Parts: sequence; C-alpha cells; structure tokens
Amino acid sequence: MTNFDFYAPARILFGDGEEKRIGELLKPRASKVLLHYGGGSIKKSGLYGAVTASLRESGVDFAELGGVKPNPRLSLVHEGIALCKKEGVDLILAVGGGSAIDSAKAIAMGVYFDGDIWDVYDQGKPIEKALPVATILTIPAAGSESSGDTVITNEEKQLKYGYGSPLLRPVLSIVNPRLFFTLPREQLACGVADMMSHVFERYFTNTAHTDLTDGLCEATLKTLMRNALLASRDMRDYDAWAELGFAGTVAHNGLVGMGREQDWACHGMEHELSAIYDVAHGAGLATLTPGWMEYVWKDNAGMFVQFAVNVMGVEGSYRDSEAIIREGIARLREFFGKLGLSATLSGLGIGEDRLEEMAKKATGAAFGDEQPIGGLKKLHWQDVLAIYRLVK
Amino acid sequence: MTNFDFYAPARILFGDGEEKRIGELLKPRASKVLLHYGGGSIKKSGLYGAVTASLRESGVDFAELGGVKPNPRLSLVHEGIALCKKEGVDLILAVGGGSAIDSAKAIAMGVYFDGDIWDVYDQGKPIEKALPVATILTIPAAGSESSGDTVITNEEKQLKYGYGSPLLRPVLSIVNPRLFFTLPREQLACGVADMMSHVFERYFTNTAHTDLTDGLCEATLKTLMRNALLASRDMRDYDAWAELGFAGTVAHNGLVGMGREQDWACHGMEHELSAIYDVAHGAGLATLTPGWMEYVWKDNAGMFVQFAVNVMGVEGSYRDSEAIIREGIARLREFFGKLGLSATLSGLGIGEDRLEEMAKKATGAAFGDEQPIGGLKKLHWQDVLAIYRLVK
Repeated sequence: MTNFDFYAPARILFGDGEEKRIGELLKPRASKVLLHYGGGSIKKSGLYGAVTASLRESGVDFAELGGVKPNPRLSLVHEGIALCKKEGVDLILAVGGGSAIDSAKAIAMGVYFDGDIWDVYDQGKPIEKALPVATILTIPAAGSESSGDTVITNEEKQLKYGYGSPLLRPVLSIVNPRLFFTLPREQLACGVADMMSHVFERYFTNTAHTDLTDGLCEATLKTLMRNALLASRDMRDYDAWAELGFAGTVAHNGLVGMGREQDWACHGMEHELSAIYDVAHGAGLATLTPGWMEYVWKDNAGMFVQFAVNVMGVEGSYRDSEAIIREGIARLREFFGKLGLSATLSGLGIGEDRLEEMAKKATGAAFGDEQPIGGLKKLHWQDVLAIYRLVK
Repeated sequence: MTNFDFYAPARILFGDGEEKRIGELLKPRASKVLLHYGGGSIKKSGLYGAVTASLRESGVDFAELGGVKPNPRLSLVHEGIALCKKEGVDLILAVGGGSAIDSAKAIAMGVYFDGDIWDVYDQGKPIEKALPVATILTIPAAGSESSGDTVITNEEKQLKYGYGSPLLRPVLSIVNPRLFFTLPREQLACGVADMMSHVFERYFTNTAHTDLTDGLCEATLKTLMRNALLASRDMRDYDAWAELGFAGTVAHNGLVGMGREQDWACHGMEHELSAIYDVAHGAGLATLTPGWMEYVWKDNAGMFVQFAVNVMGVEGSYRDSEAIIREGIARLREFFGKLGLSATLSGLGIGEDRLEEMAKKATGAAFGDEQPIGGLKKLHWQDVLAIYRLVK
C-alpha cells in the first residue's frame, strides 16, 4: 500500500424526497445562488418546479443558467462566469448529471481565476479559490457529486480535458433515486459503464498488498453490475437505482483508490472520442475497456485473474490463467452488450480515419510532448492506436 | 435502503512518516494546541519527541495533558477543560488510541458547554460548538480518528456512556502503520475485535436491499481477519498493519452503515462490562458477539447465512441453514480464540454476581426507564441477561 491523503468532505443527502430540503439547506450558506442545469428534462419532470419552490420558500435568492449539454462546453462556462460576477453569486447549485456539475465547477473556479479558465484545464494551472458548489443529481454516472474533478470540452479546439482540486468537492449533494426513473435506457447503460470505469481505473494496479481497496472495488463493481440488470428490467425499480446512485458516489469519491497506483488510460483514450465525435463518455468507455484489458493483461496476469474470479465469477483451473482472464473479459463485454452498449468503434459511428490523430492527442505526441498514459502499463501513442484498432 | 445523511470530513493522512508533518499541518489552523496523550509509551517509542519537535519547528505553541487511561475517565476530561480555558487552546491534538481521542473530543466540547460535560453523555444534551480535534493514531481499534463519537467512563458512578455529533469529527488524522509495530499482542487482538464489531453493528440488519454496503462490510471484515493473522504472526508486518489501520477507519467513519438500520446491542452490553470490571472493550466484544449471534440469529436467518457464507467462507447445503449459521459462529469464535481472546466472561475475570445489574443498566431498566437495545432484534434486560449467561 502506498501513502495517501484522503479527504472527501461532500455531505451526501440520500433518498426519496431529499431535494425538497434544498432551500433550507442552502439558506445558511448562500445569499445568492446560481441555478445551473441542462435542457428541459428537469422542467418536464417537475424537479425544476420543486427546487425553485424550495429556494423561494426559504428566501434564497437565485439567478439561472440552463443549457448545459453533454460533454459540457467552454462557451457556456464563460457565460456562467460573467453571470456570477454580475449577479454577485456566492454558491452554484447544479441540478443535473455530471455535465451540469462539471460545468458548475468550472464556473465556480472561473469566478476567481485571473485569465481564461481554459488555461487551468489545458496547462494544469493551480487554483486558489472557488465558489462552493452544491448538487442535485439526476443521472448516476460521473460521480462528480462527490469528487473534486471536472471535465470540460473546448468545442472550438475539439479538446476535452479534466482538472481536479479539493476546492472543487461539492459541499452538499442530494441523491434521490426516484429522480432516475425517467432516464432513457441509454443513459442507464452509459452511466453504469462510466461508474464501473471509475472503479476499474483504480482497481487495475501494480501496487502490492491492497486487500481492503481490492475488496471495496470488487463489492462496488458487483453491486453496479447486479443492479444495472435489475434497473434495465424495470426502469422504476427504486432499490436498484438506489444501489446504482450510492455506488456511483463511492466509485468516485476517492476512497476505493487510496493507497494504490491508479491507471486512467481508458478515460484518456475515451476523451478523444468524445471530443471529436461527441459520443457519450460511458459508451466510449464500454467499447474501449475490454480492448484495453486484452492489450495489457500480460503485464499483470495475477490482477486480471483476480478480476475474472472475484468480479466476473469465472471458475476454472489456475494452471491456465489466460483462459480465466479471457473468459472474464468476454463476460464483461457480454454484460455491456446486454445493456445495449457497442463493442466496437464503428458501432459508435467512429471510422478509422482519425484513430492515429486521436492516439497522438491522447498521449500528447500530437503536441510534441508525449507523456505515456496509464499506470498498470505505460501506453505510448502506438499502444493507444493498437487498442483503438483492437476494437475498431 | 433507507434514506441517509453521510458526512465524513476527516482528512486522513495515511502512511509511513506522515506524523512528521504535524506542525506544518496544524500551523494554519491553530495558535495554541493542547497535546493530549496517555502514558509513557509515546515517550518510549520516540513519537512524543517527533511530534513536539515538529510543532516547535513550525512555531506551533502547545500545552500538554498526559495521563489518559483505557476507558478514559471523566476526571481527566474536567482537568483538560480547565486547562484549555486557562491556556486559550484553539485545537486539541490527541496522540494515542481511541481513549486519548475520545477524551480529546470530550474536552473539545466541554470548553464551550455550559455545565458539567457529563450531562451531555448522560442525558444526550445537544452541543453547539467544539474545538477542532486532530489526531495521530497509535492503535487501530476505536475508529475515533474518523468518527464523531466519543465514549467516556464516569469512574465514580461506574457508568460508561457514548455521545456523537458531526462537530466532533476530527479535522485531520494521521495514520502511520509503523507506529503500531510496538503494540502488545493483546492490543492487536482487542483492536481487531473492536473494528470488526463496528462493522457487525452495521452489517446485521433487517433493512432490505443493501447490496453495496453488504459488500463493503464483508470486504472490510475479511480484510480485518486476514491481516490480523498476518500481524499476529509478525508484529512488524507493515502491510498487514496498513490494512488494519485503513480498515479501522473505514469500519467506523459511517460509510458501511449508510442506508441500513443498525444494531449496536453488543456495544451497549459491553460498555457495562468495561464500566464495572475495566476490561478492554475489544475483549468484551469478542466474548459477547458470538453469544449475541447465537441468541438472535433466528430473527433473521438469511442475514446470518449470508455472514457465514460470504465472510466466514462456510460451504454447505442451504437446505440446512442452521448448520451453516452455527458453523459461521463457531469459526468466528475460533478466529477470536486464535488471537488469544476469551470466549467466556469468566475468562475475563467476570463472575455471575452482577450480570443482572449490568443487564438492567444496559437497557435502562435499572433507572426505571427501559429502552430495549439493538436493531435486528430488540433486547430487553432479560434478553441481555440471557446473552451474558450464554457466554458466562
């Protein structure tokens, strides 16, 4: 186990009806709130009405900025920063999924950042201050409701970069599984793939003696898989959505990756797909992850046997570990298939013409500064290209 | 799953050498620190010297109060409160195990409490403010380094009561597994029993659909058992102590009990043993828990089959669930026995003469106000007495 620094101060209010308390909860913290959200779904579902009613009842003044899109855009972030400055906003309330929350975090730090906030994403410039962010989660997927991470797409440059800081951890997040009932089936699938990837990126490691976090990762993965199938059978299964919503938070609040070297290559490879083709992040991850596994498993066969046995329930003779590993990967691909996710890039509408460009962008080689990605195995652009081709 | 409110803001700095950073970490938070600890062990081990050197180097002024005993005493808490007021202390640094930390929390709230701080424990009076507490952990056991709980013994009245508040969560805890190398073997055993009990009290529940936390509980229990045996074989096994130290924090920061009705009967029954006989908390828990299981399992046989199979690795025909359950309990008792813990009260030096008195105190019947204890099964004083007698 490696040394670590764990700090996850987001307060999670979990369960049916909790969103009606938002006004009372924010009142002591904020004099003026920016309500930040996506399209019309929260208006159709009645959530917008419930939230604004609660804010008004508690006497919390608020401004509004809707229009967040999946793979949230830098241009809207700029708009939000200007609005917060103009209105004297002192807390941002994101109502939505990871896109709305990530956009809120970008605005929260942009209000205090001297310069273009894109530089923080592009150059990893440190931040010193951010507005507090609270969230009401409508899609279990990104884990942004508890993490200090944000990912923004620069639509002009076709770049999608992430940034993280403890200052960006939400102070308060409300997770009500009932709000997930109206999600399209595709968002269930993509969300589950994203949450599983947050665990995978931490789970697959070369660090020795990680019993506790191995077990926590495996429990979280099994919970996600079991309940994804329950929810896909009945999209109004409260208990299944509760497990998914809770697991999504645990998957990405940092805990299950403490004390272990992490990987994150699949996230890096996927961001290139989303930036150019605007595919759903989870869909891209579901395509890439089994290919990544096939490409890297020989570097740590023991880790992949453990995955196959403990997570995918593979039985067999340990004398043939390759058979166990390949069966584990096959079962993962089958699981994603059951949820309707594509095993190939062509199934996502991605051809072969820009694979090399994306591989070079993912590793920085395109910018003359290659930094191999990944932890379990270091991947150069040629490796990334090989993985893209494995799942073309 | 039930609704829940999860808030665990303690920052955990984990790993070898982290305690040397204590001065730098406290400097921005405190102008005057109370250094609170137990007996001579931290002086013998060199930890006291390292901590005071770090505080001095960073220019952090401090006062001192040593002398915390296991089952920490109210009288020392009173002394600490007076000292903090006199010295203008604004942060308490506990260096030790659960006793030093629990004592520090009592002092932290006592500084602001109008009246005798015992009333908070005795009558559950709410608190509004407490000094921040930081910790350097020397015994993985109580989980007090991340929890908002404190247990204090009123030695005059032979009462041991607990109290909890989010205001008592430590702001910062340092956990260095190397500091555990010099613990006596008995403290390894008692600590493991205490940490396992923190999970058991949350795990055994009648709440339905708790997949994620079931899995997190089971992973934590298995990690504790596996690594307890490794550490007992080699008391200088860094990795084993690291797993125990990390698991102890996860066991009691609240996470693994979220969304489920909890039990806590064994803790209630044990506090009576410690209050009168001054036995180690973990030793009392190791004696009582298997007895409690034997007494209550019929109320939720499915839960105990799950425990036997998923935690204790029992195999067998589910057509005979009683056999599976009894085997699971027997293996737990054998495990505690391997660590040198007593299966009987007589082995702890406790006779039969005061069992009824303790049973009546544990449930409040002694004070004319019986509140049955436990969640999975409600226990009246007659039930508690029956459990004491099962393990006499």
